[in-house]
Amino acid sequence: MSDAVVKGFDSTFGDDFQLNTITFLKYAAGTFPEVEVASRLDDGRMFRYDYAQAMRRVKRLANALTDMGVQPGDRVGVMEWNTFRFFELYFALSGIGAVLLQLNPRISHQDRAYVLQHSGAKLLCVSDSMWPLMEAIKDQLDQVQGYVLLSDDPDKQPETSLAPVSSYEQLLQGAGEEFVWPVIDERSAYSGAYTSGTTGKPKGVFYSHRSIYLHTLAIAGAARMSCEDTLMQTVPMFHCHGWGVFFAAPMLGARLIFPGRYTAETTDVLVDLLISEKVTVTCGAPAIFLPMLHYINTLEEKPRFKNLRMLSGATEPPQAMMKQYAELGADVVHAYGATETSPLVTANVLKPSLADLSEGDKWELRKKQGLPVPGLDWKVVDHNDEEIPNDGKTVGELLVKGPWIASSYYNDSRSEDSFTTDGFWRSGDAAVVDKNGYIKITDRFKDVIKSGGEWISSIDLENAIMAHPQVLEAAVVGINHPKWEERPLALVVVKPEAGEVTQDEVKEFISPGFAKWQLPDEILFVPEIPKTSVGKFSKKNIRETYQDYYARSKQG
Amino acid sequence: MSDAVVKGFDSTFGDDFQLNTITFLKYAAGTFPEVEVASRLDDGRMFRYDYAQAMRRVKRLANALTDMGVQPGDRVGVMEWNTFRFFELYFALSGIGAVLLQLNPRISHQDRAYVLQHSGAKLLCVSDSMWPLMEAIKDQLDQVQGYVLLSDDPDKQPETSLAPVSSYEQLLQGAGEEFVWPVIDERSAYSGAYTSGTTGKPKGVFYSHRSIYLHTLAIAGAARMSCEDTLMQTVPMFHCHGWGVFFAAPMLGARLIFPGRYTAETTDVLVDLLISEKVTVTCGAPAIFLPMLHYINTLEEKPRFKNLRMLSGATEPPQAMMKQYAELGADVVHAYGATETSPLVTANVLKPSLADLSEGDKWELRKKQGLPVPGLDWKVVDHNDEEIPNDGKTVGELLVKGPWIASSYYNDSRSEDSFTTDGFWRSGDAAVVDKNGYIKITDRFKDVIKSGGEWISSIDLENAIMAHPQVLEAAVVGINHPKWEERPLALVVVKPEAGEVTQDEVKEFISPGFAKWQLPDEILFVPEIPKTSVGKFSKKNIRETYQDYYARSKQG
Repeated sequence: MSDAVVKGFDSTFGDDFQLNTITFLKYAAGTFPEVEVASRLDDGRMFRYDYAQAMRRVKRLANALTDMGVQPGDRVGVMEWNTFRFFELYFALSGIGAVLLQLNPRISHQDRAYVLQHSGAKLLCVSDSMWPLMEAIKDQLDQVQGYVLLSDDPDKQPETSLAPVSSYEQLLQGAGEEFVWPVIDERSAYSGAYTSGTTGKPKGVFYSHRSIYLHTLAIAGAARMSCEDTLMQTVPMFHCHGWGVFFAAPMLGARLIFPGRYTAETTDVLVDLLISEKVTVTCGAPAIFLPMLHYINTLEEKPRFKNLRMLSGATEPPQAMMKQYAELGADVVHAYGATETSPLVTANVLKPSLADLSEGDKWELRKKQGLPVPGLDWKVVDHNDEEIPNDGKTVGELLVKGPWIASSYYNDSRSEDSFTTDGFWRSGDAAVVDKNGYIKITDRFKDVIKSGGEWISSIDLENAIMAHPQVLEAAVVGINHPKWEERPLALVVVKPEAGEVTQDEVKEFISPGFAKWQLPDEILFVPEIPKTSVGKFSKKNIRETYQDYYARSKQG
Repeated sequence: MSDAVVKGFDSTFGDDFQLNTITFLKYAAGTFPEVEVASRLDDGRMFRYDYAQAMRRVKRLANALTDMGVQPGDRVGVMEWNTFRFFELYFALSGIGAVLLQLNPRISHQDRAYVLQHSGAKLLCVSDSMWPLMEAIKDQLDQVQGYVLLSDDPDKQPETSLAPVSSYEQLLQGAGEEFVWPVIDERSAYSGAYTSGTTGKPKGVFYSHRSIYLHTLAIAGAARMSCEDTLMQTVPMFHCHGWGVFFAAPMLGARLIFPGRYTAETTDVLVDLLISEKVTVTCGAPAIFLPMLHYINTLEEKPRFKNLRMLSGATEPPQAMMKQYAELGADVVHAYGATETSPLVTANVLKPSLADLSEGDKWELRKKQGLPVPGLDWKVVDHNDEEIPNDGKTVGELLVKGPWIASSYYNDSRSEDSFTTDGFWRSGDAAVVDKNGYIKITDRFKDVIKSGGEWISSIDLENAIMAHPQVLEAAVVGINHPKWEERPLALVVVKPEAGEVTQDEVKEFISPGFAKWQLPDEILFVPEIPKTSVGKFSKKNIRETYQDYYARSKQG
């Protein structure tokens, strides 16, 4: 570490007691054994058990994995929907000192093969519905020594040339129920994830037991969770360990719901579970919460949620969406983070000192990423690494450091670009901080549009356009321009039921919030906006497609 | 450590980021700088500042202490009421890597001299009202190199032969406001405390930065605290660092109230602050909460508390007291711990699975110590170190181990009696665990009464007697008996306004809950019950006074 560490007087406390993931499940099984964990099966029925039963299966799994030769430090790839089996694998693998490598089914075959080779995964556990994704790269799986099929049907056999393949459920049936958990050095990796959607090859991070343990305490505090809650794990557990939210449930003895397989097109599944299971905490991105709301709007009887908190990340939640959820009794809490930050860095809570703000100002405030959570070092710095003033205007890059923040990428020369010499992770996010300490991400630095020596925020434009009642989605990118260096171009998807909308109407609609030169030169109406595997706008993709658009249209 | 630790795959996270106390105050000063900290002065007025101002004074203090030669690892004794200066000393001393040695003004001069010599304290910071307690042992302070007078009056000079003496406020005025906090190894001691009231010399424990950091997260979670809370620090900060509750306030950005000087006879001060400062969280023992209630009963206008949570430790809170507070809108939460456990081990929260219990059963449940908080290893074992069943009847000793549990006493051969070879602290408390996992402490093992080969719980008898409407307090001890080995003797204090009560009335009142042979042979009405420095019944003292009582009265 770069800071000199001062050693003081010896303590007489249990400083050797290791922060381990299995502590959470031990707690739930010991103190809240009766609390339910429910998981939606492929056929739509609910599988239900409790923490005591979950622990017994996790112990069987630990025995089965050990019998298969999985050793402390081994990486084991898992590609699965949000199910109770994924939950069991998280605890059993980390519990024996191995590493659960999160495999994203939405990245390219090429990237997946890279992730498996780069991480050195030795065993793969794969959902039957995702099996073809492995089959597609079967020639690049040399170091993999075995496969486990995750299926609701214990007797299912995949048609495959991969071998050997075991059935998860059969493994559990054949394993013993007694297992003594070893103490794992808290600085050992418990799970690994690779970032997606950026340029170049995926970059890997390996979360420690210590980091996820402390992160779990932080996210439980930010969401004000207790044993009275029912958590639905909506964020995919193959994406930054599902934001680590599900760990908080056994830690607190809260009820836990896994929605199983769903997509952005089948979010009715999620809404139905919110209602039927009386969920009080969930997590997700506006790309999921928005279609959920559209589905709710089709329901004859509107749900009335009770104390439902929806942690919302990835992109800024549209104000209209937050207001509609509020009318249903649900609180959308904007939070911010990244794969490199476990992810929780900020959460938007209202300070008591701001209680007297007008309702309008409160809604404006809620669009911000919020206040940093306790436990982290952070700063927003200009190009000279000087901290910017908290004036709500000056833009800088957000840098973060802490127990649950990455300090490097695994075996990757690109680490030095992303981490400072004193250990801060460079987010690449352009941020302002207001006088009350609220952080607002104004853009990705690489998404800021540089026009005639000035900067234009693509996110501000997107949000303004998306506030138009007939607009479903809008993405804005900076496109090469022969005169101004870059100029904004907007892609807009109108709502299915909407009538015709024109460029001029949209420009007119957003013009009050912008200088004239900041408005997009062109607004293109498109059927859909390209997205990354995690549902964010793929600006890289948009820029590639439209890179010569202004050069052609204006000059060509 | 005794467990073998398994090292897995290297993590890429910030595992070197040290858990330091100053992180909490940095957070408050950075993110909640406007939040108020208020402290009652000796003249009754309130001193008010905010976290930003507190941090500036703490930095001045860090400079002053450094200038005085305080080095990392040095022990600095502090004897003070619950004031903002004590708060500042906690952060400044631990922030520079030194150790705040908690000095209890209520122990004997002899014990205090022992604590100072055994710990090797080099500097003492003492409240002006407690100065005579130092003066009394001035001949035994050889290793002490200096003194700091804590007083509301910056120019106050004590009449003393101790030297050199500095004024706290003058030190701060003369010190600079810039200070860069070093990173402290989280396993270094941040504070030390000596247990009181037991046999033999006091035993010392030294809490690490890591232990208090993790304990703060635990207690904030158990009390469900957030930035919306106002915490009043009632438990003396010289007693197990005031249960560490005050650390949670800056960690969360919550408002913080210090009541200054008060005693069990002046708890009206505390009630007035609860009301005027709109307190939502506080902590204390029934020995304080009971007189507070008596004072409230004298008020013409009864307070209506809003979401007030009162963490209650030390002894079992009388049910009648809990019910009366509930009528006022306050929730008395029974918690359990000790100096060796930081102290939080259990807290009594209602499991959702028990929501359907009758009101009466819920009140019975609330008398138990509650459920263990997450993060600890614990067990209740019989004489063969076998875990007892969760049957609510079988009695065993509670053993605890964890990041905020002591693993030894400092430089003390008695450690081996109190800690198992695998690192558990032996509480000495007799406990049962019910089928829902709730722990109930039935007695101190040494307070269990052994009568004719059977055991009688002194605590059960005490609680039964204290439920009598005319009884203020009752203590029961086992006294040597020529025939039965021991027999129970009860000391009873009747309420000031109560009429005459007889032995037989009291025995009649409690008889439904006990076998006849379990009833005390004698009930003595006394003006007061001897107490330890922390307000618990001094059973040691009672036993000494009455050791021959049955031998004399029955046989003599």
